Amino acid sequence: MQKFDLDLILKAQRRLQGQVVRTPLLSSAMLNDIVGADVYVKAECLQKTGAFKFRGAMFKLAELAPSDRNKGVITYSAGNHGQAVAAAAHQWGCPSVVVMPEHAPKIKQDNCRWWGAEVVLYNKDVEDREDVTQRLIESRGLTFVSPFDDPFIMAGQGTIGLEIAEQLAEVGATPDSVWLGCSGGGLASGTLTAMRAKCGNLESVLVEAEGYTKWQTALQKGEPVKLEHLPKTLIDGIAGPAVGALPFEVLKPIQPHTEVAYLEDAFQGMRTAFQYLKLVLEPGGAAALGTLIREKKRYEGKTVVVVCSGGNVDPDVFLQAWTH
Amino acid sequence: MQKFDLDLILKAQRRLQGQVVRTPLLSSAMLNDIVGADVYVKAECLQKTGAFKFRGAMFKLAELAPSDRNKGVITYSAGNHGQAVAAAAHQWGCPSVVVMPEHAPKIKQDNCRWWGAEVVLYNKDVEDREDVTQRLIESRGLTFVSPFDDPFIMAGQGTIGLEIAEQLAEVGATPDSVWLGCSGGGLASGTLTAMRAKCGNLESVLVEAEGYTKWQTALQKGEPVKLEHLPKTLIDGIAGPAVGALPFEVLKPIQPHTEVAYLEDAFQGMRTAFQYLKLVLEPGGAAALGTLIREKKRYEGKTVVVVCSGGNVDPDVFLQAWTH
Repeated sequence: MQKFDLDLILKAQRRLQGQVVRTPLLSSAMLNDIVGADVYVKAECLQKTGAFKFRGAMFKLAELAPSDRNKGVITYSAGNHGQAVAAAAHQWGCPSVVVMPEHAPKIKQDNCRWWGAEVVLYNKDVEDREDVTQRLIESRGLTFVSPFDDPFIMAGQGTIGLEIAEQLAEVGATPDSVWLGCSGGGLASGTLTAMRAKCGNLESVLVEAEGYTKWQTALQKGEPVKLEHLPKTLIDGIAGPAVGALPFEVLKPIQPHTEVAYLEDAFQGMRTAFQYLKLVLEPGGAAALGTLIREKKRYEGKTVVVVCSGGNVDPDVFLQAWTH
Repeated sequence: MQKFDLDLILKAQRRLQGQVVRTPLLSSAMLNDIVGADVYVKAECLQKTGAFKFRGAMFKLAELAPSDRNKGVITYSAGNHGQAVAAAAHQWGCPSVVVMPEHAPKIKQDNCRWWGAEVVLYNKDVEDREDVTQRLIESRGLTFVSPFDDPFIMAGQGTIGLEIAEQLAEVGATPDSVWLGCSGGGLASGTLTAMRAKCGNLESVLVEAEGYTKWQTALQKGEPVKLEHLPKTLIDGIAGPAVGALPFEVLKPIQPHTEVAYLEDAFQGMRTAFQYLKLVLEPGGAAALGTLIREKKRYEGKTVVVVCSGGNVDPDVFLQAWTH
């Protein structure tokens, strides 16, 4: 099995050059005033397909054997990873299947289909996404593209950390803390590996959706966990059921802090990004920013990086940030 | 008087290095599919203070004599230029006054005050903004910072054109057409001068708000015009009363096309930027994009650049793009 390390992230950066957006690291004097800290926002909602997931999917497909790639790829996803795999497959000219819960936002379903993917819907209450996916892998000879539990996926997402380190160096800033939304752990394991290598030791904070605080539990227990009860949530981008085994191996020795994002935190992040950064964020993409604002007292005078990871949101959900 | 030319724009780019955001040039496969063309969006809503105006204001203040700058600066503005002057003055540590119509969006008034500017409101129906401003210049010894009729302002905005040319070269694209919202003409004169120098001859399209089609009239008559009747409009970012004399001298030989943006076009641009680019645009910042979509039949298979120039919009106006 491929080893995950900084070298693989550096390889991913070389492979992805010109294929992914080098998203800007934004700041706002008004936002800094509100938080009482120097805040740098990595605007991954501006990535192709509207979320960071495209980085990992592109690198994974680049590293597949052409014969496997040509037979097609499959994944399960609350949405953004599915879109990313569909778009990457489109780029490589190979078939793709995306397994999604029935209540996934319509924009995410539509986007997968637009890229040419076949969308297979399942009922979250009576079926398991792994089982549905496994049946299709066996019947069609597809290759599974994990949303997070794969060294290539983790390395692709890790290019965000390399870019942040470069962009902070350009403005002469040294980060004290980095905040990111976390579900399976692909973004966090990749980004934190890169940033700790490039920026030295820094506090890292994983933000989890209310009802999905599996990293908090896993880090306490010392082993990955899988949730049994999956409440409905608008913070769907970071509401997967499982901690990734490989991301857990990477993050366990780092011992990141965890924070719970409530819906109001996600909405606060969305309103803040709208007003001060002119970015559209989905609840899962805004949860880290909103939760940082809630916890701002701990960061007075510090330099904090926040990864805002996705912007795929239906207008009616977006409007709820003001009207709920 | 300072000459306006490409050299001044190049000087502005050197002076502004690290002081302004090099905003990304974004694209979306889905947007390209809708328009039937390769569309590149210059995301100037991500500029400091949320609009391109910061570029010109920063360069103008950089070029003032320190003794004049210390006495303070004044401007009139529908909002974005006012914010930009206030922020630039804050950066330089000098006083600033912004003269604004009473019905200017509250976010724009608040933002000017946040930067330390004194906001002077006037009644558009009974007073003239030039008269209000002139009284304050005389009584306080302030230096006027024109929103557009100034070679330094035009050159500052023109750095957008240099960046677009560089960013197109990075992806190997050659533009056929460039679309931008236009009111006084600072953005258009600067950007088109830079792009025509760097990208060769290309079609240029000035988009004007309904009721404010002063460039159409001016280019037909062969001289700058000033409107008498100023209807209320939500497309306030490009709804100034006058064509700038100096921008007119620059744009007249170029003979750009003009297009009228109706409110529905601006809303179309806002919805499109929300869905496919994850950008928040104000109506005036989205008018060019929405009008291009309306006129897309002319651009099949072409490469089109659109400057999306500002994102300072109150939530209730933003929501109207879906609910009106």
